[in-house]
Formats: sequence, C-alpha cells, structure tokens
Amino acid sequence: MSSNTAKHPAQSPIENYLKALHARHAALDDGEVADYIPELANANAHWFGISLATRDGHVYEVGDTRQTFTIQSISKALAYGLALEDRGEDFILSRISVEPSGDAFNAISLKAESGAPFNPMINAGAIATCGQIQKRDGRSRIERILAYLSACAGRPLSIDQAVYRSESDTGHRNRAIGWMLRNFGIIDEEPTEILETYFQQCAIQVNCRDLAVIAATLANHGRNPLTHEQAIAPEYVENILSVMASCGMYDFSGEWLYHIGLPAKSGVGGGVLAALPGQLGIGVFSPPLDAQGNSARGIRVCTDLSHDLSLHLFANGPQLPASIRLSYDASQVASRRQRAPEARQVLLSSGHRIRLLELQGELNFVTTETVIRAALKQAPYCQYLILNCRNVASLDDVTRKLFEELKDSLENQGVQLHLCPASRLLALAPAIAKLPLHADDDAALEYCENQLLAELIGPDWDQAPPVEIGNTHLLRGLPADDLAWLAREMPTHDAASGECIIEAGDNAESLFLLLSGTVEVRLPEPSGKSGKRVGVFVAGMSFGEMGLIDGAPRSAHVLAHTPVVYRVIDRALFDRLETERPKLKIRLLERLACQISDNLRRSNREIAAFKN
Amino acid sequence: MSSNTAKHPAQSPIENYLKALHARHAALDDGEVADYIPELANANAHWFGISLATRDGHVYEVGDTRQTFTIQSISKALAYGLALEDRGEDFILSRISVEPSGDAFNAISLKAESGAPFNPMINAGAIATCGQIQKRDGRSRIERILAYLSACAGRPLSIDQAVYRSESDTGHRNRAIGWMLRNFGIIDEEPTEILETYFQQCAIQVNCRDLAVIAATLANHGRNPLTHEQAIAPEYVENILSVMASCGMYDFSGEWLYHIGLPAKSGVGGGVLAALPGQLGIGVFSPPLDAQGNSARGIRVCTDLSHDLSLHLFANGPQLPASIRLSYDASQVASRRQRAPEARQVLLSSGHRIRLLELQGELNFVTTETVIRAALKQAPYCQYLILNCRNVASLDDVTRKLFEELKDSLENQGVQLHLCPASRLLALAPAIAKLPLHADDDAALEYCENQLLAELIGPDWDQAPPVEIGNTHLLRGLPADDLAWLAREMPTHDAASGECIIEAGDNAESLFLLLSGTVEVRLPEPSGKSGKRVGVFVAGMSFGEMGLIDGAPRSAHVLAHTPVVYRVIDRALFDRLETERPKLKIRLLERLACQISDNLRRSNREIAAFKN
Repeated sequence: MSSNTAKHPAQSPIENYLKALHARHAALDDGEVADYIPELANANAHWFGISLATRDGHVYEVGDTRQTFTIQSISKALAYGLALEDRGEDFILSRISVEPSGDAFNAISLKAESGAPFNPMINAGAIATCGQIQKRDGRSRIERILAYLSACAGRPLSIDQAVYRSESDTGHRNRAIGWMLRNFGIIDEEPTEILETYFQQCAIQVNCRDLAVIAATLANHGRNPLTHEQAIAPEYVENILSVMASCGMYDFSGEWLYHIGLPAKSGVGGGVLAALPGQLGIGVFSPPLDAQGNSARGIRVCTDLSHDLSLHLFANGPQLPASIRLSYDASQVASRRQRAPEARQVLLSSGHRIRLLELQGELNFVTTETVIRAALKQAPYCQYLILNCRNVASLDDVTRKLFEELKDSLENQGVQLHLCPASRLLALAPAIAKLPLHADDDAALEYCENQLLAELIGPDWDQAPPVEIGNTHLLRGLPADDLAWLAREMPTHDAASGECIIEAGDNAESLFLLLSGTVEVRLPEPSGKSGKRVGVFVAGMSFGEMGLIDGAPRSAHVLAHTPVVYRVIDRALFDRLETERPKLKIRLLERLACQISDNLRRSNREIAAFKN
Repeated sequence: MSSNTAKHPAQSPIENYLKALHARHAALDDGEVADYIPELANANAHWFGISLATRDGHVYEVGDTRQTFTIQSISKALAYGLALEDRGEDFILSRISVEPSGDAFNAISLKAESGAPFNPMINAGAIATCGQIQKRDGRSRIERILAYLSACAGRPLSIDQAVYRSESDTGHRNRAIGWMLRNFGIIDEEPTEILETYFQQCAIQVNCRDLAVIAATLANHGRNPLTHEQAIAPEYVENILSVMASCGMYDFSGEWLYHIGLPAKSGVGGGVLAALPGQLGIGVFSPPLDAQGNSARGIRVCTDLSHDLSLHLFANGPQLPASIRLSYDASQVASRRQRAPEARQVLLSSGHRIRLLELQGELNFVTTETVIRAALKQAPYCQYLILNCRNVASLDDVTRKLFEELKDSLENQGVQLHLCPASRLLALAPAIAKLPLHADDDAALEYCENQLLAELIGPDWDQAPPVEIGNTHLLRGLPADDLAWLAREMPTHDAASGECIIEAGDNAESLFLLLSGTVEVRLPEPSGKSGKRVGVFVAGMSFGEMGLIDGAPRSAHVLAHTPVVYRVIDRALFDRLETERPKLKIRLLERLACQISDNLRRSNREIAAFKN
C-alpha cells in the first residue's frame, strides 16, 4: 500500500501559512524596544513568535514562541476579570468606567465628577482595578493574580524580579495616579501596597504560546482549552472582551477594531494577545514598539492574520449553522421494535404523524429560533414531534425556556413534544428534566409509535399472546400437514428472562420462531457484554433467518426480555426439507426472502431519509 | 386525527416573549421627545414598536412597527457605506477617522492636525461622509442615498419634507461644521448643497420593521434577507459594523458595547437599530430620548433582549459548529455501482483506504482548520480522501486556498484529495475548479473504488465481457442440465443504449440476467423522467429480484447504459419451476435470498455509519 511507503509526513497548510507569515515580517525593523527601564531594553529586537490556539486545544507555534518576556499591560485585562469575580459588576462599574478615553495609556484620565478612571485598560484604571482585588484565604493580592493568570495560561507562571524592581524604582507617575485614586475614594486604602502589586503583576513572565492559550481561554468562555480548567468565571468573559474591544489598544482602539476587528490587548514587553470569541486565540511577540506603544510587528501580523484568514469579527460574522440536521417521520425511519404485519402497515401509512427533527450545533436563541419555526410549521401535520439532540454541542438557558414554552404551545394544538437523548440533555441543561425525555431516538420513536398504534388499532394493539406455530407470521396459512410435520420436527426450547439465546459471533445455524414472550436484539460492546438495543421481537415473530440463509456469523446478541418459548429450524432440518418436503422448503424460502426483502426496503427508506 | 380538530393555532414562544417584553416597557415614562424642531415634538411619546428580523427573512413585529418616523442619525451608518463604495476605504480614512471621540454627537470634534472628524457617527463626520458621496448617472447625492437605504429596507422610502425644511431652517451649527470641514479641505466644495443633502438624508421616513430589516441586511453580509438584493457591498459591511460598535451610541458607546454588546446606531427620531452579525437584526422605536440622545425605551429593550436572549457579541460568542458531520470509509458505505463478488470482497477488506468526510456549515478559517487537522490525521491510513460538501452552506476564499494546499500536502504522502458535489462547490467558489471535483459522493466513491480495484486486482479488474448464463453470478455452478433447461426456457432480449428496461411503477414480474453490457438504475424524478443514479450493473449480474420475490411495484427506472443483452425469468417460469424442477427453484431461491441478505447487511452497515 503506497501510504506505507510514503516518505514525507503530510504538511499542514496552516503551519505553512504561519511560517510564511513569520518570514514575511521577520525583516521588519520598525519600532523601538521599550527602554524606560534597562531590563526591557535588553530584549532582542529580532525575537519574533506567532502562536495560534484553537478552542479545542490545538496550538500552532512559529518562531520564538517559548522565549519569555514580561506580560506588562496585557495583565490589565485579566486582573479586571479577577476584580469582577471578587466584587461583582455593579461595584466595579461604580469605581471604573468602560468608555474609551481617546488619551494615551499613561494619561491620568479620571472623570471630572467622580474621579473614576475612564476604563480599566489605561494605567489609572488598571491600578484602580488592582486595588479592588481582595486578599483572601491567607493569600496576597499578587499571589491570587499569579494563580489566576497561571490558570489562564495552563502552566505555573512566575515574576521577573529584576523587571519588578526596576518598575517599582521608576514608577513615580503611577504613584501620583495612585494617590489621586485614593483622593477620590476609588481605592479604599493607601496606594503603596496596591502599586507594588501592580508593578509585580506587570512583571509576570509569559511566552508567546501562553498568550495564545490565554486568548483561547477567553475565546472558550473562560475554560482553558489545554487543562479544561474554568480559569475565568464565564459570566465575566464578555466584560473582559468588551473592554478589550473598546479600549484594549489605547488610542488605536477604534482603528484596531476597524481594521483587525478582534478584542485584543498589548503590552510594552512586545506581546499582543487577540481573541476571536468562541473560536480562536492569537499570541504575537516582538519587542519593538510603535508610537502608540503597541508591538510594531504585532500590529502587522494581526492585520495580516485578520485579512488573510478572514478573522474580523464582522467580516464573515459569526456563523449561522443550520440547526436542523435532518427531518423525517416514522413512516421513513421506524423504531427498532419489530412490529406485527398489521402494525407495520399502520406505521407505514400513518407514521408521518410522528415527526423527528435531528438538531445539531450550539443551541442559542438564534439557532433555536429556526427550530421553533420548523416545529410550528410541522405542528398542523403531526401529533408527535421528537427533537433528537444527539449532535447538539451546547444548549443554553434561553433554549431550554423556549423548548418549555414550545411544549405548551404544541400541546394546545394537540401535539406532543418529546426530546432525546436524556443523559446528554441533562448534562447540557439539568433544568430540562421538566420536559419529556427519552433515552435515545429509538426509545422516543417507540413511545410515540405505541401511542399511535393504540389510537389507530385499539387498546389491544400490543397484545402478543402465546401462539401455536400455525399462527406465527412465517408459517400462517401453510397446509395443515406441513404444519403438523413441522410441529413434530422443530424442537421446543425455553429461556428465562435475561438468558442469552444467540451470542454475537456464534455460527449461524438456526432460525427461531417465538411462540411466547419477548426477546431483545442488542449490539455487542467491545467488552463482550450486550449494549445498545437494536431490535425487539414478540410472540409470533421469527428471527435469525439471515444467518440460516447466508451462514454469516451472528452480528448481535439476542436475549430473552421475558420468559420465552421458541421453536427452532436448524440447518440439518432445513436441508432435510429439500428431499422430504420440497414444496414446503420453497414456501419457507419464499417467505424468508420476502421478509429479508421487506427489511431491505425499510433500510433503504432509512438511508434515503438520512441522505435527505 | 386530533391535530385536525385542534382549535388554536400553535403560538410562537418567541412572539409571546416579544409581547411580554413590549408590555414590560410600555408604561415607562423616562426621557423626552426631541423638540428642537416642532415636527419631531409632534411624535406621540406612547408610540412603541419592537421588531426582529432573521437572516433568512422572517420578521417578528410587536406594537407600532408600521408607524413611520424620520431615520435621523441612523442614516449616518448607511451613508458611510455608500461613501466607501464611491471612494474606497483608503480615501475615506484619509478624510474621516474611526476613533471614538468621547464627545457628544454635535461637538465639532475635529483632529487638531488634520481637521479630520474623529468618526463618521458624529455630525461633523457624517457631514464629511455625505460630501464624499458622488453624483452619478444623472442622479443627485440624495437620490442615490435614498435608493441605497431603500434597498437596505427592501421597500421604496421617501423624505419627510416638513422635517427636512425644519432641519434646514434651524441647522446653523451644522453649517458652521460644514464650513470648518471646507476650511480643512475635508470636503472639496462649498458645504451648502452637501448640508441640504445631509438634512434630507436625516429626514428619510422609516418604520420599526424597516430598522430590523436594515439591521438584518447588515447582519447578512449586506444582502437584504427579504428581497435577496445585495444592498451593501459585502466588503464594506465590516467597516460599517465596526464604526457602529466603537462609536454608534455617542459617548455611551463603551457602555453599550459592555452591557448590550451589539453594533448599533440610534437616531433622535426614536429609532434604534442593532445587528448581531451573521445572525439577527433588531429595530426598536420609541420617541422619548435620554440625556445622551438615545431612545430611552430603546436602550431598555435592547438591554433586555441582549440579556434575555443572550445576544451579546461576546456572551456565548460566535458558535463553533462541528464542521465534520460524518466520517466513514468505503468498507462501510460503498458506491452504488454493483460489484462482482471478488471486487465486493476487495472493497470490504480494503475499502478503509478510501475515507470520506462529510462537511457542513459555513467553511471559514476556523471551521476549516478542524477539517485540515482531521484530514492530516487520516492521511497515514488512507490513499483517497473525499470531502463531501453537500451540506456546506458557504465556503470562503481562505478555505478554497487551504483545500488547494491540503491537496499538495496529501499528494506528497501518496493520498489523493477529491471533492464533491461539483455543481454546489462551483456555485460557492468558482475558483475551486482547480481541484478534482465529482458530481456527487457516489461518483467520487466509485472513482476512488475503481482506482483501488485496479491496483489490488489488476488492470483487468473492470472487464465484464459477455457471458453465457452458466457464468452469471446467480447461476454459476448449477448442474449442467439445469443450465441447459434454463437456457431453453429463458427468453433473450436486447436493448439499445438509453433504452428503458424497467420503468418505475411497473408491476414487478421478472428477474433479469445481464449477459452483456451495462445498465443503470435511476430514481424517477417528479416529472417522470429519470434522475439520480442509484446503481450500475454489468454483464454477469442479475437485477429485479426483489420484485420477483415480493411483487412490490418497481421503485426505480433501469436503463441500458450501453447496448445490452439479457435473459429473463418471469413469474410464470418461476412458478413452473416449482413442479418441473423443484430443486432448481430451491437453489435459485437460496441464492436470491442470499443476494438480498447481502444487500441488507450492506444497507445496515451504511445506516450504522450514518448514525456514527
């Protein structure tokens, strides 16, 4: 096989693209490395890394993505999240506004009346934010900030002590801001300790890969895609992203949103972090800064990424995935419960009264709205509506409430709403338990079919009393002497509830005629145990015919669901028929072929439904 | 059927919600109706409408959604789009910046150096924008603006002449701004006519429903969801939404983005327009304004909508739909081409070398990235990779390029990339023609199967030379005298290429044994003509056996694909076999049952693959 002899592993076009992007900007010499403290001036102007992290935890890295540097102002966005978790939104908004100031990052920018900083992304707002974070459980503010950022990055971070000391030694302007904040009562204590915390916070060491992972954590509703830890409380992620979008890039924020269109934050260490909410995290690292204090290469790389990959928030916009994957009714796809011929005919002609919608993706207001409309459109034509949520990735509270109200609306029109699968739905939204849930689509279909059959055939529709062989579907109507001969020759067996009649993998030797009770067909699990139910047979039905015909090993277990009595036609008897009763053998073969043919037509209807 | 006797039409939970929302805020008496001109002061403070328009053109309306009012500043966002279309982004950015000013709407707010207005949403920027729009094709600026807005609303709009005259009579401040713009060279002519155009533009009459439709047009990449007209050039939609997001609500923009999180624009007429990109448009109308000049009820309603329906851009974030719907290989789902037993066996054991990924949703960088990763992961285990794009809603240029590069990467590893269906892909992205396209998944599968069979069986794998009946799959190995008897009794027919052998709906009377040539099975179209190909048979195979067994009418057409010769076993002959040659009949029934059984197992494998 040629794939075994292949010499090169297949290259990822995405890695290739990122390498080309890195090469395109590696020679750029715009900007100046920050030099207000010597420790930053030591940075190599050629260091350059690009990293992308997906919401499912795949990280692409090109260039110097493991070189550490100090996080600086990027920490402001995350510290804001911790302050919100400590104090709540209302309190924080009463101390720090969220309007872009139009001023540079180090402007004092306090609102005239209240003294509230314009936003948490300028120094004044960031120091004020730091002051709202609480000491808790014996841990200092900086310990808590460090733990919070480490959870976002998915690895333990530490502080660059030299940078911290330099920042502290030269941070006179920030001290002035701190005292102004104390003057206005924006912070509740003397600023000295808060400022030291702030200087340490800015001196936390990260690398380019960390920035991408932190951005992906923001993009992933606060859950770190590598560790799966809920690093940021999900209710505050939108607040962080909102201030990043409106104020994250200082007085370049409006242009950044216009050209690049991603919530982002930069730091004088040369880092840029940008998040495409719900989708992707980006980290870029390159120390030389432009006039606004943003990484010059960082801006270029993000501009290209946004343009080349069409990542602008409003470019292609969030996607509107079709939330309905399939729509079919019970005349096309029936439950795996085998039905007597009459019931089968009823379901074929009236199964359209049971409609199944197979949903997919993330269900929120917009995606669910299309489901609601489709359900209301089906309502006049059906009595049962099943929503199969097997492929639903998430289901928010808005959707859960809409489903509850949909149930009431449909009930007023005489339509029952059913949902499945129960375990998945309960995991996604525990409060959904108020709605009628079923284990899976098969159980939901069977439940609705049973009600429909009771209505159309009568209360006795499901009676399957013990039968003699002459009343089984396979042998009904055969000449009396054939029946008498078979009654003599076919051995009778019984099995207790739960007993195994056929084991998957067995050689197929026999056809079984069920005279009383119910059996279930179950797929084998890898463990060898019985798993998902794929069929139910009741008295009067036969099973195992395919094995007798083609001799292929049994593909599933058959277990007695109740105590059962059955008769068996084994291969030896079937062979003997050829000489002893050829006409009977012809009759049996015709009926078996007809039964298999019927199942094939049914399977082909299902395939057609699945292929639309 | 109870649904026929239902008394109430099912109510939409979404309409119910909007009614409750309307009722909740109807009593609010915050704010003041604008009264700087008498025509606006005439507005009824109780007028109140809410409208939602989906991207697929469904419009929800509650309250006074058909009451007209003047569009006022909401026109600024749209006129900006027309200016961009006339002059291009670079030119417009050289005249009007996109930074939030932090100032009120009527501040002069020009940048100190250049005189450029801070952004197009303040009056100075809007007048400057109006001045960039060109007179064209004998149409004045205002005629072009009116046509543009009418296309966005999906109906012809007109100007409220009384409001226009009042605005013009009192617009002294705006005239001052106009002359300042002329002074700085931001506009190239005397401002008088531009200002009249601007006053008329603000006096265009709309209703609440129009606002929702315009917002949905923005949300729908510029295509009006009702008329399907491309009202706004798609390349400028992101620019419009970006300035709405950063500057759309004046000095409340930061808070609006923080709390409501939707690009939006308000007007002093009482209108608010908000768009959830890619998803939804919102219009609210209520004349009383708050201190910032935004509709007081409009802010409340949008706040509730965003919160109750979780519409904040960054709340649940854009969705990440699974882009791979199904993954299976050719041992599970084979092409509809019937194969000789040997070929069938080869495909069963080696079909895993052909992998099919069924994609769905909107393919962009983020969704395609997961496809690329899945493809690279499969590459070591397969020789053929088919991407079935039947359920793909859109495919951007980024994806098209990634697919081209994926093809090269896979080729280096000895894996072929194939795509289908060709017509859909070419409609979505004409440049995709460079890749190997197939009409549908069946054609792609067959193409890959054929190559695999040629490799594994040899160059003669597809030879199906004419055969005698003794060499057909059905009759091979039967005793010579049975074959001689059948050769005598089975009539021989032929058909020219294209001729119909079985017509869908016919009574099933016969089994056909193909001795030379090829036939195709095709589904009937509603027109009665032959449609999608669902099977191919070559010399040596038989077809039509299910009809002979169960007598059900033919479900598909069978047409000669080449000139063919075939033999027929009709029902009379089959019946005669019972008395004349019972053993032969038993043999035939066994083989037919086996053949049907084989098809059933194959169909069940397909169903299992489709259900994952």
